[in-house]
Amino acid sequence: AMTELEKSMESLITVFHRYAKEGGNKTTLSKKELKKLMEKELPNFLTTQKNPDTVSSIIKDLDQNKDDELDFEEFVPFVAGLTIACEKHYALHHENKGKK
Amino acid sequence: AMTELEKSMESLITVFHRYAKEGGNKTTLSKKELKKLMEKELPNFLTTQKNPDTVSSIIKDLDQNKDDELDFEEFVPFVAGLTIACEKHYALHHENKGKK
Repeated sequence: AMTELEKSMESLITVFHRYAKEGGNKTTLSKKELKKLMEKELPNFLTTQKNPDTVSSIIKDLDQNKDDELDFEEFVPFVAGLTIACEKHYALHHENKGKK
Repeated sequence: AMTELEKSMESLITVFHRYAKEGGNKTTLSKKELKKLMEKELPNFLTTQKNPDTVSSIIKDLDQNKDDELDFEEFVPFVAGLTIACEKHYALHHENKGKK
């Protein structure tokens, strides 16, 4: 059976491919596919962003090979960055039990 | 309810903290804690490594602030790298349906 960490890694792969395989290039996320992934999988993320074109700026930041699409290797740092931001929030809550 | 991607991100955080909180510094993984995490959460990873001291070399590679421990931000690239390697394997299997 898979461990919790292995399941977490596999989910990242399967979620990416669920949206990547819809349009033209089957193994990369177009802007449209990334937007759909974020709306479905990170429902609160886009709504909290002031920049209406957050998705384009995300692709611009992460798209190393300049094909206007994100392959898995370009997508992972996005999720990693979000997870690191969430962890800071998590650590803050859990470490502050004693301190005022 | 959390989406699959959100659960995957949360698992990464909770798994890290489950092992980090055991020893001295509660929010970082010592070598011992990282080794235990890998043995429990990535059971096949260490056994397939020729280098008997894989854990030390992993810490050496990832330990930015040179405290011989991995905080969450130093740990994430390790899991990201593994996930990217797994995805290449996944993509190969799924893309090769037609091609010989």
